[in-house]
Amino acid sequence: MSFFNPSSVKNLSCVGLDPDPNRLPAHITGDPEGVLLFLKEVIQSTSAYCVAYKPNFAFFEALGPEGAQVLLETIRFIPDDQLIIGDAKRGDIGNTAKAYATAVFEQMGCDAITVSPYMGVESLSPFLAYPDKWTISLALTSNPGSNDFQRLPLSQGGFLWEYVMESCMSASDADHLMFVVGGHIPMISAGSVKLPQNISLLVPGFGAQNGSLKAVADHGFNSKCGILANVSRAILYASPEIDFAEKAAEVAHEYQLEMKELLQSHNLIL
Amino acid sequence: MSFFNPSSVKNLSCVGLDPDPNRLPAHITGDPEGVLLFLKEVIQSTSAYCVAYKPNFAFFEALGPEGAQVLLETIRFIPDDQLIIGDAKRGDIGNTAKAYATAVFEQMGCDAITVSPYMGVESLSPFLAYPDKWTISLALTSNPGSNDFQRLPLSQGGFLWEYVMESCMSASDADHLMFVVGGHIPMISAGSVKLPQNISLLVPGFGAQNGSLKAVADHGFNSKCGILANVSRAILYASPEIDFAEKAAEVAHEYQLEMKELLQSHNLIL
Repeated sequence: MSFFNPSSVKNLSCVGLDPDPNRLPAHITGDPEGVLLFLKEVIQSTSAYCVAYKPNFAFFEALGPEGAQVLLETIRFIPDDQLIIGDAKRGDIGNTAKAYATAVFEQMGCDAITVSPYMGVESLSPFLAYPDKWTISLALTSNPGSNDFQRLPLSQGGFLWEYVMESCMSASDADHLMFVVGGHIPMISAGSVKLPQNISLLVPGFGAQNGSLKAVADHGFNSKCGILANVSRAILYASPEIDFAEKAAEVAHEYQLEMKELLQSHNLIL
Repeated sequence: MSFFNPSSVKNLSCVGLDPDPNRLPAHITGDPEGVLLFLKEVIQSTSAYCVAYKPNFAFFEALGPEGAQVLLETIRFIPDDQLIIGDAKRGDIGNTAKAYATAVFEQMGCDAITVSPYMGVESLSPFLAYPDKWTISLALTSNPGSNDFQRLPLSQGGFLWEYVMESCMSASDADHLMFVVGGHIPMISAGSVKLPQNISLLVPGFGAQNGSLKAVADHGFNSKCGILANVSRAILYASPEIDFAEKAAEVAHEYQLEMKELLQSHNLIL
């Protein structure tokens, strides 16, 4: 299974859906109906420029119990040829992780889920058990707090995030497992961190977080591209006016063109 | 703020609500209505024997979008004098964590939330910012996977889980922050791990996971008790028959009596 098909894909970008009721255009209400309307318009206008959508579960849950229905309807509205990543950062013991897998893969119909590895490889297994789904584990994230634990040097050598990747990779393969690695991390931009060449990365940190797509491409591309670059707020909130969907499409298009150019310059697509 | 009041409390146990539709008594349907009915009966029959309930969000989310409403109604049914712990293991960057805090504390009305610290202390801050709520971070969990990362020795000395506790404690205080530390961990039972004396622990691993309440009490009690012992499956699924609520109460009562005895033998209550 791969989300990268060089013959058909002209970009590898992902649009993050983080609907904050306080940041919707003024003419759209911040209630569940308004949020759904907003997201449908954004999806409709941007789907030509991306290969994946990443609904961030927190923002739907913050709407209250109705948020779950808004999430489901948003997911159902996303075109079939897009990868749907449930950005849920779940992570718990076996029987609980299994319930989360049921929730995100079966009930919500996501193709992929983000997970948090603190409770060990075991906590990923119920997700990895789905042959047609992707599990995307946190590894080295793009927030300042990633310094606190992820970059701790271990007695055995290396950093925690590297060992997390290595351990999780030993329990799965590149067709089912990806990792979250932040896009604006200086070590990556400088090429001083070796990214795995056999596995794909979901890379947030562009747009609002100022990551450089070029730096990540230069150091992170592998023979199958290996990079799914996520932009959330810079696309969603491109305009606070009635033209929000149009402006969202413009920004998504810019990222698509930049990504296409990078893929071409690395001879990954024609 | 404290959940421990020696004059009124005769036990410190927590009942975990992990409603698995496949394990409900035969006469109760596994749909959202059946799950709600089941949980209401369990809560009604056990509330005399515990001080807290811990709904496990995964099992509600696995019911589909309706699960969110079942969760809300379950929480509303829990008596006011009980601490309600949203067992959600959330953990994400600042603006997303803030949305999760809105969801769990404001929309669902929980008094506490479990969080996963992999993304750093920053990922706990939006929860800790609520003056009347508890944040309960994973530290050393009771599952086999806790060996994978939590117990890794760090270059700087100590284990990851110890450093996680220390770092999070530096950002808060014992009135707002607790940690999850597993109850059947041999190092704890043997007293070879020093548990913090100034902070409280949520301790799972009893019941189905066979932890020893006495071992944890002997090594984990502090002057304010400091231990909230959780039992989930052993109480919820005490009987698959029509007497499930009665049997759940019996098991909860046994734990309450054991806990009371331990609190008395440690001179924490009369």
